Amino acid sequence: MTNTIKDVAKIANVSIATVSRILNAQGGYSEKTKFRVLKVIEELGYQPNAVARGLINKRTHTIGVLFPKLSSSLVTDLLDGIEKAANDNGSSVIVCHTESNGEKTMKYLQLLIEKRVDGIIFASEILKDEYYQFVTKAKVPMILLSTESYAYPVPFVKVNDYHAAYAAAKHLIDKGHTNIGMISGKKDDIIAGIPRIEGFKKALSDHGISLSPDNIVFSRGFNFPDGVEGLKKLIGQFPDVTAIFAASDEMAIGTLSAAYQLGIKVPEEISVIGYDNLNLAEMSIPPLTTVGQPLAKMGEAAAEMLFTIMETGETPESRIMPHKIIERMSVKERKE
Amino acid sequence: MTNTIKDVAKIANVSIATVSRILNAQGGYSEKTKFRVLKVIEELGYQPNAVARGLINKRTHTIGVLFPKLSSSLVTDLLDGIEKAANDNGSSVIVCHTESNGEKTMKYLQLLIEKRVDGIIFASEILKDEYYQFVTKAKVPMILLSTESYAYPVPFVKVNDYHAAYAAAKHLIDKGHTNIGMISGKKDDIIAGIPRIEGFKKALSDHGISLSPDNIVFSRGFNFPDGVEGLKKLIGQFPDVTAIFAASDEMAIGTLSAAYQLGIKVPEEISVIGYDNLNLAEMSIPPLTTVGQPLAKMGEAAAEMLFTIMETGETPESRIMPHKIIERMSVKERKE
Repeated sequence: MTNTIKDVAKIANVSIATVSRILNAQGGYSEKTKFRVLKVIEELGYQPNAVARGLINKRTHTIGVLFPKLSSSLVTDLLDGIEKAANDNGSSVIVCHTESNGEKTMKYLQLLIEKRVDGIIFASEILKDEYYQFVTKAKVPMILLSTESYAYPVPFVKVNDYHAAYAAAKHLIDKGHTNIGMISGKKDDIIAGIPRIEGFKKALSDHGISLSPDNIVFSRGFNFPDGVEGLKKLIGQFPDVTAIFAASDEMAIGTLSAAYQLGIKVPEEISVIGYDNLNLAEMSIPPLTTVGQPLAKMGEAAAEMLFTIMETGETPESRIMPHKIIERMSVKERKE
Repeated sequence: MTNTIKDVAKIANVSIATVSRILNAQGGYSEKTKFRVLKVIEELGYQPNAVARGLINKRTHTIGVLFPKLSSSLVTDLLDGIEKAANDNGSSVIVCHTESNGEKTMKYLQLLIEKRVDGIIFASEILKDEYYQFVTKAKVPMILLSTESYAYPVPFVKVNDYHAAYAAAKHLIDKGHTNIGMISGKKDDIIAGIPRIEGFKKALSDHGISLSPDNIVFSRGFNFPDGVEGLKKLIGQFPDVTAIFAASDEMAIGTLSAAYQLGIKVPEEISVIGYDNLNLAEMSIPPLTTVGQPLAKMGEAAAEMLFTIMETGETPESRIMPHKIIERMSVKERKE
C-alpha cells in the first residue's frame, strides 16, 4: 500500500498543510516539526517529490514573463493585460528581460523554473528548440504572446501579421496613393518580417499597383534608428514615394523624425502609417496613423490561457486577435 | 564542540556543495542522498538554518527590482545598467511592476523575499514605512534608485533634483529668455516635485527674474498627458511665456505635441527643455533639449552597491550622480 500525505500528517501529528509547506520549503514551521515530518516521510518510504508534483497543490501563484526588450511601450501595454488577468487570478507577475540573447533567455527560463513559477508567457520572440525542450521537460505550462511557433505545438496569442500589413497598405491605396514604399523589419524574420512584407506586396498586387525591389527597404530591426535610416534609403531609391508603411510604430516615428530633419512635411508631402499602436503613436508629431493591435487584451488572453492550463490541464486553442486601422494625422488623402 | 557543514559532509560521505544544495533545496541530488544527509544533520544536532544563514553561501544570484511603471524609457535605461552590473557579478534580475500601488508593492516585496532574492533595488518611488520595515525585518539588502528616503538610512543613487532643475532654468536664462514658465509634476511630491520646483524658482530669483504663481503649472503626474494639459493651462495664465521647463521628458513631449496642435512653433515661438534624457528625447520633433541623468550608470551603481553589501556586509555611501544639459533643437536663443 502506498502511503499518502495524509498518513504522513497523521503519524507526525501535524496538518496536511504543514507537511505540504515543509515539502515546498515555504517556512512557517519549527525545525523540530520539520525533522519530525521528514523522519516520518523516511520511515514510511514516502516519495515527497511525487507529492510535490501532484498530490498537493504546489502553486506558487507567480507567473513569469519573458520580453526581449523592455523599452518598447509594446511591453507595457501587453503587461497591463497580463497583470490584470494575473490579479484576477490572485497571482503575481515576474518580468525577465532577455535582450533576444539565447544564453540570457536560457538563464531566465532556468531561473523561473527554479523559482517555481506556475507558468511562463514567452513574448515577442522566436521560440528556439532549446527553450521549448527545456520548458517542456520541466512540465511548466507556456503561452506564446505576440509570436508563434511553426515547429512546436505551443498555444499563442497574436494578430495575423499578413492580414494586418495588407490592411495598412490598403489604407494608403484607399487614400489615393499609388507610389507606396515600405520600411520593413528584418527580411528573414519569420514572425514579424516576412508576413508583413508579403501582406504589403499582396495588397499592392491586388490593386494593380506595380512593385519593384526599390519600393521596399529592409532594416536590421524594428527600432527608431531603423526608421531614420529607412527613410533616407527609401527616398534615395524611390524618390516618387508619397506614402510609406513602416513595419513598427518605432520605425514610423523614426521616419517622421528623419522627414523633419530633411525638411519633408508629413503628411503634406509624404504619408506614413505605422504598425502596433503603441502609446507613443499618440505622442508623435503629427500623431501617427497606425495598425492597432489590441495589446492589453492580448496580454490578458495569454495569461487567462495559462490559468486555464493550470486549472484544467487542457491545452487551450490559440487566439488570433483582430487588428484595426487607427486613423490619426500622419496619412493624407491624395488627389491627383 | 559545534559541528560544521564539513562534519556533516564527511560523515554523510558527500561534498560540502551537496549538503549546501540539500539545505537550500536546489536539487541535483538523489532522494537517497538527501535523507542520508538530513539524518546526519539530525544525529549531529546540527542547525541547518544557522548554516543556511551564514556558514554556507546561500546566495541565489538573483536580485529583484521594483519599478512603479514599466512604460517609461527611464526604466530601460536604468535597467540596462542594473543588468550590466548583475551580469558582471553572475546574477540575474527579476523585475516587478508596482504601479505605485502600496498593496501591490507589498505583495511584490513579499514575493521577492519568498523567492530568496539576494537584494532589492527599489526605484523611482517613495519608500513607505511598511516597505522599509518589511525588507529590514527580512534582512535583505536594499538600495534606492532614482529616489531617496529622508526617514530611513537606506543608501541611494540619484541626481540632485534641485541642482538639475536649477541648471535647466539657467540654460533658458542663458539663452536670453526672461518669460519662463514651468510645467511641474506633483506639487507635494517630495522626491521629484518640490526639489525641481524650488530649483527652478531659485534660478529665476538668482538672475533677477520676477516670478508669479502664474509662471508655474502643477500637474497630477509626470506623464505625456500632463504635458499636453500643462501647456494649455500655462498659455492661458501666462500668455507671454517664451520658454518652458517641463519637469520630465514625457511632459516635455506632451508640451511639444500640444504646441503642434495649437499651431505654436517650437522652438521659434516657444522653447522647451525637458528633464531625464530618455531615449524618447532624441525621437521627438524637434529633438528635445533636456537635463540628462546618467541613467545606465545610475542603475549600474545601484546594483554594484547591492553586491558590495552582500559581499562585505557594509553599507556603502549614497551616490549623487552628475546631471548635464543635453542640447538638441527645442531651445532657441532669444534676441530682443
